[in-house]
Amino acid sequence: MDHQGNISEGELRRYVDWLIERGVHGLYPNGSTGEFTRFTPEERRRIVAIIADQTAGRVPILAGAAEANVKETLAACEYYAEVGVRAVAIVAPFYYKLSPASVYAYFKEIGDNTPVDVTLYNIPMFASPIDVPTVQRLSEECERIVAIKDSSGEIPHMIRMIQAVRPNRPDFSFLTGWDAALMPMLLVGCDGGTNASSGVVPEITRKLYDLTLSGEIEAARHIQYDLVTLFDTMIYQAEFPEGFRAAVELRGFSMGRGRQPLSQQQLADLSALRNSLQCLLSTHGFTDQPIGGCPVPAQPEQPGNVNEIVSTVVSELKRRGLIS
Amino acid sequence: MDHQGNISEGELRRYVDWLIERGVHGLYPNGSTGEFTRFTPEERRRIVAIIADQTAGRVPILAGAAEANVKETLAACEYYAEVGVRAVAIVAPFYYKLSPASVYAYFKEIGDNTPVDVTLYNIPMFASPIDVPTVQRLSEECERIVAIKDSSGEIPHMIRMIQAVRPNRPDFSFLTGWDAALMPMLLVGCDGGTNASSGVVPEITRKLYDLTLSGEIEAARHIQYDLVTLFDTMIYQAEFPEGFRAAVELRGFSMGRGRQPLSQQQLADLSALRNSLQCLLSTHGFTDQPIGGCPVPAQPEQPGNVNEIVSTVVSELKRRGLIS
Amino acid sequence: MDHQGNISEGELRRYVDWLIERGVHGLYPNGSTGEFTRFTPEERRRIVAIIADQTAGRVPILAGAAEANVKETLAACEYYAEVGVRAVAIVAPFYYKLSPASVYAYFKEIGDNTPVDVTLYNIPMFASPIDVPTVQRLSEECERIVAIKDSSGEIPHMIRMIQAVRPNRPDFSFLTGWDAALMPMLLVGCDGGTNASSGVVPEITRKLYDLTLSGEIEAARHIQYDLVTLFDTMIYQAEFPEGFRAAVELRGFSMGRGRQPLSQQQLADLSALRNSLQCLLSTHGFTDQPIGGCPVPAQPEQPGNVNEIVSTVVSELKRRGLIS
Amino acid sequence: MDHQGNISEGELRRYVDWLIERGVHGLYPNGSTGEFTRFTPEERRRIVAIIADQTAGRVPILAGAAEANVKETLAACEYYAEVGVRAVAIVAPFYYKLSPASVYAYFKEIGDNTPVDVTLYNIPMFASPIDVPTVQRLSEECERIVAIKDSSGEIPHMIRMIQAVRPNRPDFSFLTGWDAALMPMLLVGCDGGTNASSGVVPEITRKLYDLTLSGEIEAARHIQYDLVTLFDTMIYQAEFPEGFRAAVELRGFSMGRGRQPLSQQQLADLSALRNSLQCLLSTHGFTDQPIGGCPVPAQPEQPGNVNEIVSTVVSELKRRGLIS
Repeated sequence: MDHQGNISEGELRRYVDWLIERGVHGLYPNGSTGEFTRFTPEERRRIVAIIADQTAGRVPILAGAAEANVKETLAACEYYAEVGVRAVAIVAPFYYKLSPASVYAYFKEIGDNTPVDVTLYNIPMFASPIDVPTVQRLSEECERIVAIKDSSGEIPHMIRMIQAVRPNRPDFSFLTGWDAALMPMLLVGCDGGTNASSGVVPEITRKLYDLTLSGEIEAARHIQYDLVTLFDTMIYQAEFPEGFRAAVELRGFSMGRGRQPLSQQQLADLSALRNSLQCLLSTHGFTDQPIGGCPVPAQPEQPGNVNEIVSTVVSELKRRGLIS
Repeated sequence: MDHQGNISEGELRRYVDWLIERGVHGLYPNGSTGEFTRFTPEERRRIVAIIADQTAGRVPILAGAAEANVKETLAACEYYAEVGVRAVAIVAPFYYKLSPASVYAYFKEIGDNTPVDVTLYNIPMFASPIDVPTVQRLSEECERIVAIKDSSGEIPHMIRMIQAVRPNRPDFSFLTGWDAALMPMLLVGCDGGTNASSGVVPEITRKLYDLTLSGEIEAARHIQYDLVTLFDTMIYQAEFPEGFRAAVELRGFSMGRGRQPLSQQQLADLSALRNSLQCLLSTHGFTDQPIGGCPVPAQPEQPGNVNEIVSTVVSELKRRGLIS
Repeated sequence: MDHQGNISEGELRRYVDWLIERGVHGLYPNGSTGEFTRFTPEERRRIVAIIADQTAGRVPILAGAAEANVKETLAACEYYAEVGVRAVAIVAPFYYKLSPASVYAYFKEIGDNTPVDVTLYNIPMFASPIDVPTVQRLSEECERIVAIKDSSGEIPHMIRMIQAVRPNRPDFSFLTGWDAALMPMLLVGCDGGTNASSGVVPEITRKLYDLTLSGEIEAARHIQYDLVTLFDTMIYQAEFPEGFRAAVELRGFSMGRGRQPLSQQQLADLSALRNSLQCLLSTHGFTDQPIGGCPVPAQPEQPGNVNEIVSTVVSELKRRGLIS
Repeated sequence: MDHQGNISEGELRRYVDWLIERGVHGLYPNGSTGEFTRFTPEERRRIVAIIADQTAGRVPILAGAAEANVKETLAACEYYAEVGVRAVAIVAPFYYKLSPASVYAYFKEIGDNTPVDVTLYNIPMFASPIDVPTVQRLSEECERIVAIKDSSGEIPHMIRMIQAVRPNRPDFSFLTGWDAALMPMLLVGCDGGTNASSGVVPEITRKLYDLTLSGEIEAARHIQYDLVTLFDTMIYQAEFPEGFRAAVELRGFSMGRGRQPLSQQQLADLSALRNSLQCLLSTHGFTDQPIGGCPVPAQPEQPGNVNEIVSTVVSELKRRGLIS
């Protein structure tokens, strides 16, 4: 956004390139971290159009397409199909807390009429939950429903979904939206993640993914631990998703003014958060050097990550004035 | 709505007249029972415009005005002010669960810039809660924030709000949105109710209000008991607000097709609900006679409500074939 | 308790007399405020024995009788019957969260075998909830189950229970355990209260009860408001039930050392709470005069309560050094 | 238990031997599955004494030692130390929902005075939660607090605890009590599990542990999936822990009458559960052959587990009358 709170097309295009260059497997506009509810229907369309244009097919796009009702949602699906997204993600109805039967009926009508592949989006913290029998039934009845993004973070729930769906739909994809459990989710059979942290430290989440899939459990665990710390800092020390916006700003993007007003106290809190994030990112070699005031990390770095260790040590030596 | 799910202007105008004739003190479009989230911004405006035109000043209108963000919400306030509503009601931000500080910042920006009086709308079941210190602070800082609609249904919470706000803002109004506690809410000092049931049995809620305010506690209690039964039937036996839609249909309005799809099982359930509601309404003399299959009510009717008793007895005698 | 944390028989006897003299309709040992879970089975018996002996029939006793399992609970009922209690109160099973079917089975076995009248105790905050159909079924099947104490504080729940039970069991009693809603609970048909506040300000709760039953709604409401303030202070500013213990100490009883250890910070908090409670009680004329440092109450006192107004004014004038 | 609901010493001793022979690393009496709250203090002591005597040092014992208050709990610790347990497990206070400060104060007093090593037991579903800062502080201040059993099942929570505690207390043990996440918990750094399922299928949980630690992720995952199915059946299809009692009975032990009464409907449900469990156990070769009526498992068995596959196939061929 720019400083008036409008979409800043230039920065958005630059951000798309930066993410792709750093190894993300795909892009996911209009998700919860993307504050989809705070844009107008027209703005949501424009965001996807810009991203699709800039991406130009380099990575697939999963576009959040939930609108006020089924008719409006299907119209958005139509539009997103035209601009060339790989699939849309549709969150379960929110505000009203719907029963499983209603959640089923909602996705069934969408699944039967969508012109583009659909990913279910389960985020029980914010929207009506999509339970396991509903996922199973939809996967069996609707070919165009091809995946689920689950942000519940519950391992047994993921296992139950995989057990219920995979035998009949081996092509169905399971994506986790809970960054703090990415590695164990992958290890129990999840296909990937659509993680807010990937918008901040795409190198880290990509590396975690690669290490986990290649069976380097020990190294992956160390990264997962650091990711929990980073994720907790971004998610719990500021109103979601302000912590993520602050962190992306630290990576070099002008994030502008958010749509949700903040009180004076919250604006002050945010600057404390920025400092803490800057230290964390700097420790892992992700922001400009040198930075001052960061405590020495208590935990040893993962073995073999030589570049990071070196950059951290150098940065710390500089901070202490021992080298220049 | 009509059978395509579009706004049925004729029925809406007829409904407005019917409600006013039966004694409602005001109208409240774009509330939760009005499924405001399932309409587009343009539709929400059109609903208020039709109602304002039809009402023609006979009763005040409180229009739900929440949009995607503060800017859009203020634009809606502007429009509703132009069509002549008495005030707008703005629900706390939903989907994201905001902290009190963010809820405050949101309403503060609205309260400082609105062209029309604002009613806060607290419905913690669906949206971020508005806590007592936030209500107090907003009431002290923003003159244009003039009331709160509270749908929490918690008596002590209502008392705490009144204690916190009334000393400095004696004009501030407290409205309850929880029909099942309307009488006790009024007795502890609440000013009135904006109740979904008033769209179904406006005679009943108006009578309950009048009896309570005139101190006829015993009679009011009997009505409150029956209202709990009716409210529970409408709210718990179908996906909200389908029970209310079914009941309004029983009162003689064509409600059309809802925006949220229903499964086959739910459509069947709804017809069972319709029977149960029809019996309940019939018992109180609110639908066409005779109806069959309704059980004799276990509880004696409130004394003095002669018409109702007579109509119930006659209906029951007919049902048993004793008279014709 | 004494300073070793043992039962202080002398203070307990003195407290019983004090409560009865101030107008309580009955006594309720081994409730939640009485920390029944923190005593041994032998201590629970001893508490009831002392209280029964001291009461000597002046008021009825409702003794908390929940033990580890049905057999032990029935043995406790036997004992309490022998020492002459009017009835026992039995909380639904806790720790495990039981289904309604199990809650029913538990009380059914007790109800069929108890030698003394039983009051169900519903406190969903702490124990498995007792739902309306369960109360109804138990009331119909077990003559010795004669009442329910409900601490949910939910008005519609109370109405639903009364509607479900009273037609078949007009003798069944409904008691509320949520002090902050005592007046409205009585107005919707509840029979009385078993309130923690009655152990602190028995005069106030008794007066609230009397005013409400005699229809003096306005005066009752003022007391209910003040009771909410007092109750909130006691319940939310310290670990329950330490606020109540602190308040009883202010009324002149040595409360000794609690069974639940407190951290240094909590002990400090407790002394701040004591000050705040002392001011509140003093304002209503319940502790020794004069006290210093209490703010002038923002709300006008209830009309007619002349003594209190006078004592408050005098105390404040003294505090300001205007009189001596 | 025997059929009067009393402790059946013979069966208990036989069960201890059976568990140890099947490879459990230790025993955990008086846990939640052991229904510790439904026994008297004397019975809890007797259970541990019998188990310690029968175990005779073959495996370490972790004894649940929570009693009514700190004094009683410490007395139980004293006794359990004398009979030779390796450590005690103490659940956070329950019934009352305590703040972190009170949970800290409770364990601090125990940790400073216990004669035996203490394991914290965090089960937020049933008792006051023990948060990360509390675990960290207790681990730093109390040497005798040596481990935590966490039944929250949350992976990020486990990671946070490990990050907070291990740097200063590398000897501190982290055990998970949530069977449905055992493998991923071990993979993120947890030391082991104290799992209810180990009382039913000790071979399975032991094998899952061994495979996971030796890095055979694929094979471990298949077992974890089956364990989720079994665990869900036992935990969600009957009142906890009746499903586990039914399953242990299927393994050949007389479980007698539970302490919590069951309604007729629940007794019938239990027999349906027994059938479903019997099929599941039989599929994995854990109960007597042949059994009838079990559906053919939809999922292929884990590769290499030849015995199980053979026994399943043979059992199914017999069932269909193809062989005899």
